[in-house]
Amino acid sequence: MSGDDSAGELAAKDAASGAAGPVAAAAAPGTMKWYGWGAEGQEFDPAGRPGVWSYAQAHLGITEHLPRNVPVAAERIALPDPVANAPFLRAVTEILGAASCSQSAVDRLVHAYGKSTRDLWRMRHGQVTFAPDCVLFPESEEQILRIIAAASLHDVVIVPFGGGSNVAGCLEIPQRDGRMVATINLRRFNRVLGIDKVSGTARIQAGILGPDLERALAAEGLTLGHFPDSFPYSTLGGWIATRSSGMLSDSYGNIEDMVLALRMLAPSGLIETREVPHASNGPDAKRLCFGSEGTLGIITEVTLNVRRAPQKREFRGYLFPSFAAGIEAMRTCVHAGVAPALSRLNDPDRTQLSAAFRRKTGWAETALGHAFKSYLRRVRRFDLAQGCLLIAAFEGDPDAIAWRRRRAEAVYQRNGGIGLGRSPGEAFAEGKFDFPHIRDFLMDYHVLADVGETATVWSNMLPLYRAGVAAYREALGRGGRRHWVGCHISHSYAAGASAYFTFAFACNRGPSGEVDPWAELEHYSAAKRAGLDCFSKHGATLSHHHAVGYEHLPWLAGESPMPGGSVVAAVKSTLDPTGIMNPGKLIPERSLARLAG
Amino acid sequence: MSGDDSAGELAAKDAASGAAGPVAAAAAPGTMKWYGWGAEGQEFDPAGRPGVWSYAQAHLGITEHLPRNVPVAAERIALPDPVANAPFLRAVTEILGAASCSQSAVDRLVHAYGKSTRDLWRMRHGQVTFAPDCVLFPESEEQILRIIAAASLHDVVIVPFGGGSNVAGCLEIPQRDGRMVATINLRRFNRVLGIDKVSGTARIQAGILGPDLERALAAEGLTLGHFPDSFPYSTLGGWIATRSSGMLSDSYGNIEDMVLALRMLAPSGLIETREVPHASNGPDAKRLCFGSEGTLGIITEVTLNVRRAPQKREFRGYLFPSFAAGIEAMRTCVHAGVAPALSRLNDPDRTQLSAAFRRKTGWAETALGHAFKSYLRRVRRFDLAQGCLLIAAFEGDPDAIAWRRRRAEAVYQRNGGIGLGRSPGEAFAEGKFDFPHIRDFLMDYHVLADVGETATVWSNMLPLYRAGVAAYREALGRGGRRHWVGCHISHSYAAGASAYFTFAFACNRGPSGEVDPWAELEHYSAAKRAGLDCFSKHGATLSHHHAVGYEHLPWLAGESPMPGGSVVAAVKSTLDPTGIMNPGKLIPERSLARLAG
Repeated sequence: MSGDDSAGELAAKDAASGAAGPVAAAAAPGTMKWYGWGAEGQEFDPAGRPGVWSYAQAHLGITEHLPRNVPVAAERIALPDPVANAPFLRAVTEILGAASCSQSAVDRLVHAYGKSTRDLWRMRHGQVTFAPDCVLFPESEEQILRIIAAASLHDVVIVPFGGGSNVAGCLEIPQRDGRMVATINLRRFNRVLGIDKVSGTARIQAGILGPDLERALAAEGLTLGHFPDSFPYSTLGGWIATRSSGMLSDSYGNIEDMVLALRMLAPSGLIETREVPHASNGPDAKRLCFGSEGTLGIITEVTLNVRRAPQKREFRGYLFPSFAAGIEAMRTCVHAGVAPALSRLNDPDRTQLSAAFRRKTGWAETALGHAFKSYLRRVRRFDLAQGCLLIAAFEGDPDAIAWRRRRAEAVYQRNGGIGLGRSPGEAFAEGKFDFPHIRDFLMDYHVLADVGETATVWSNMLPLYRAGVAAYREALGRGGRRHWVGCHISHSYAAGASAYFTFAFACNRGPSGEVDPWAELEHYSAAKRAGLDCFSKHGATLSHHHAVGYEHLPWLAGESPMPGGSVVAAVKSTLDPTGIMNPGKLIPERSLARLAG
Repeated sequence: MSGDDSAGELAAKDAASGAAGPVAAAAAPGTMKWYGWGAEGQEFDPAGRPGVWSYAQAHLGITEHLPRNVPVAAERIALPDPVANAPFLRAVTEILGAASCSQSAVDRLVHAYGKSTRDLWRMRHGQVTFAPDCVLFPESEEQILRIIAAASLHDVVIVPFGGGSNVAGCLEIPQRDGRMVATINLRRFNRVLGIDKVSGTARIQAGILGPDLERALAAEGLTLGHFPDSFPYSTLGGWIATRSSGMLSDSYGNIEDMVLALRMLAPSGLIETREVPHASNGPDAKRLCFGSEGTLGIITEVTLNVRRAPQKREFRGYLFPSFAAGIEAMRTCVHAGVAPALSRLNDPDRTQLSAAFRRKTGWAETALGHAFKSYLRRVRRFDLAQGCLLIAAFEGDPDAIAWRRRRAEAVYQRNGGIGLGRSPGEAFAEGKFDFPHIRDFLMDYHVLADVGETATVWSNMLPLYRAGVAAYREALGRGGRRHWVGCHISHSYAAGASAYFTFAFACNRGPSGEVDPWAELEHYSAAKRAGLDCFSKHGATLSHHHAVGYEHLPWLAGESPMPGGSVVAAVKSTLDPTGIMNPGKLIPERSLARLAG
């Protein structure tokens, strides 16, 4: 992958000079490349993972010797002509100073899309049909309030921007009605304002990135414990706006459970909630901010519940004879109150994929591994093709870990689970934040890959899983395309869990090996729709933690029946009466029509 | 207390004949007396509690020989003239049948007020300034939808009624603008519709009373685990409408944490949420129903997270050398993840009260008790006047109880806590649902008593506690009245807990011993206001779990600053566009003005 595009150069320059400013900001720490997941220079490297290529060849028919599908250079991308609202630009220049109001091509490009597969594929092929007209970098609430007031006055659209890591089309404005679009980048809202160690709370600005937040807390021996896959590149405000869930949610809860109070600036004023752990004071206005996806206002400050960092966190692997047995073990642990801090159960295909992606040979490949497999087959009568890897994390002090592990392992054993020790767990923990890079790596070889994630109750988990795999397979295989589907279950709750499907297909090629990127994107979209239709039909949700954006909006009306949908529209009409905040999101068309009529 | 009033007679008749119907319904199981807390015949009995009278005499100057302040008989109460909206009455008679539409005096009386101290005092003195004009007993959602449609058409106010146990003035309509008021009693929505043991969920109609719900679950080995003080007399729908909290909330969560999905019928249609454990599908409409206090619609069906009933639940008592030491122990247990299922810490006065209310002499009074006290004073250097009783409950299987108890007790010990064994804990568990009856018992002796409850973060707990006690004392003592104030801390969260003040004062008497009930009610109200002003000033909330009603409404605007308040108004204007649902609640005047303007 080329490192000499303009954004890359700026990143290098910025890192060298430490210069701040709107243009260099494109490559500020935690900022992702415009054309892919992760920071410049961060990419998936198959070297040292001996199983990758044979697995990719066997399942998708690709080899490392194929010609690569390299992203077009930034300078070859034609951005849409900017819409310039001169009075607004004058106003924001006065509010922020010219250095914090960027109309540069690189800033417009970096803030154009999120990181959905659709976004990355279009970007890679140079198709950028939307970009904001300017990018603003405020550093105070007062500046934001003044920007919003100017936008209201001059009818300019505002798009709040955290880390830009969303995968549901949350940034793009499908219908701007001729208005100028200003993105507000919240990077400068990254300070820890106060820590109350007695209450275990921390007041933090919402634009802070995951690593900066955890670093500041770690200095006090504390942790938030929120580790979504996007952690290195996503912000606190973004987590709240999308109802984010981290890998340790079974123990720490989702972001909604971590927020004690918040401040959100809306066009009609400030929402500020009190720092109380529970209240019976009417419907909780704070709850409306969770999942608001930038449509109601800009979250600026958050008081979080934080915890003493655990003495120890221990990842372990277990192998179950079937997906059903593993699900039953997870469910039983939750209902018995002995669930680990993380439980993540791979289906057989996802288990094989994990083995193929391991850095070095381990239990599955070594001589010991062979003996172990033989024992599993002969003594335990395991069908290894059906084996399912469960990754569990235990944390706390040694006594707490020992107690919980003993109780959980008793449940695993009753369900046929076999301990694999720490090595598979550590491989997972180490590779956790690498996994999202694989999508770009596969695109290099004309493979489109994505995930579809949902949640349902335990009793519906296996039917949903089977239907989901079948739906993806049917859609992916059309036109004879080679494809792969796997699933894992994670984020356990009393009533159910999340099901997370991963899928990929190798693009069809013409007679001389050429790929039609738009036909393949449509093939991808059909598979994505098949998954969402299946979730909806089976009573599950359009997303467990990836948000709605515009990509999932068609399924929202089906699960927020009127007047549920119109309630959000009513809130929006109060907080954002002129409709300038990230329009075209969350509100199904008929709701808007109803309000208008 | 007289048992021969009309409601009592009807209760007896109803129990004997099993007859159903709108009038007998006034005394259906779980229905409270109109003039006090609890069912007819249930009252506080000081017999067998040797410490009660000496404590009451010492602190409030009352003796059992004083003339009693008996509630007036029902037939002497003049209800306000009913407003009759003939077209509406014709419509509901057609929908429900005449037998399920009551305009009887007893039904109007029983559904007039809730159970706040202000309600009971006014009722006891025959002052009933509000009563609904009819009481309806629907049994299907379709009937409710048709009633609401008729009410919308004919401009009739609807008041949803669960158990009638609210203590914040949630039922009374302060300003009806000449409209007829129809109360919808949800008693007939009391069925368990389905239990999914795999997912640990139960779909239940919202009018079910606590004991009926737990009985149905217990038959399947399950429990909801929600035990508010009102448990025998309150309903599932009422818990949701008020954001209720039960005594085991530290382990089971508050009602919001127990609801997986719900159905609410609003004038503009049905809100129905999906049975998924978490979703990233925009703001959660379900959350708007929590705390809606009947202002948005009628909750009819709820899918609850239920659990396997614990093998064992064990209540224990511990004595701490100070309130501060006990608070520190509670906080440390929560932050270390070893909190019991219940922790309830009494301040010194509340500790003395608990001792005075024990059924028989125990650790505090026996010879062993004397020796123990002497040990505490001499060896442990306890100041017994400062001793604070902590009640803790541990539950689960014996292994889980032993592990948690060992960890919690290590924390208690480090904070100077001393185990008192099971006796104080069992006394608490046994007397738990008796305690609310004491208010009526005290009113019999011209003592006005109430509670004021709030929540705050741990670091603010002691300052709030001290300020709260001082505020109540100052207000209660005016005019030389004898008074009593105590507090307990319960409902622990990561960030803080609830502070629950209990207070009482003996009414002033004129030269010939007469009491002016309205002057004393105003004295009571001043004390209540002093508490709420103090909570507000100290950053706490107007209520942790008792709702807003009209009694706490003046403090709502202060903690839901605009546009937080107007957001709820916007939701109401969408769900209840003609303003018929329990008007005058939740929406601060200025919000309504803003919407109108």
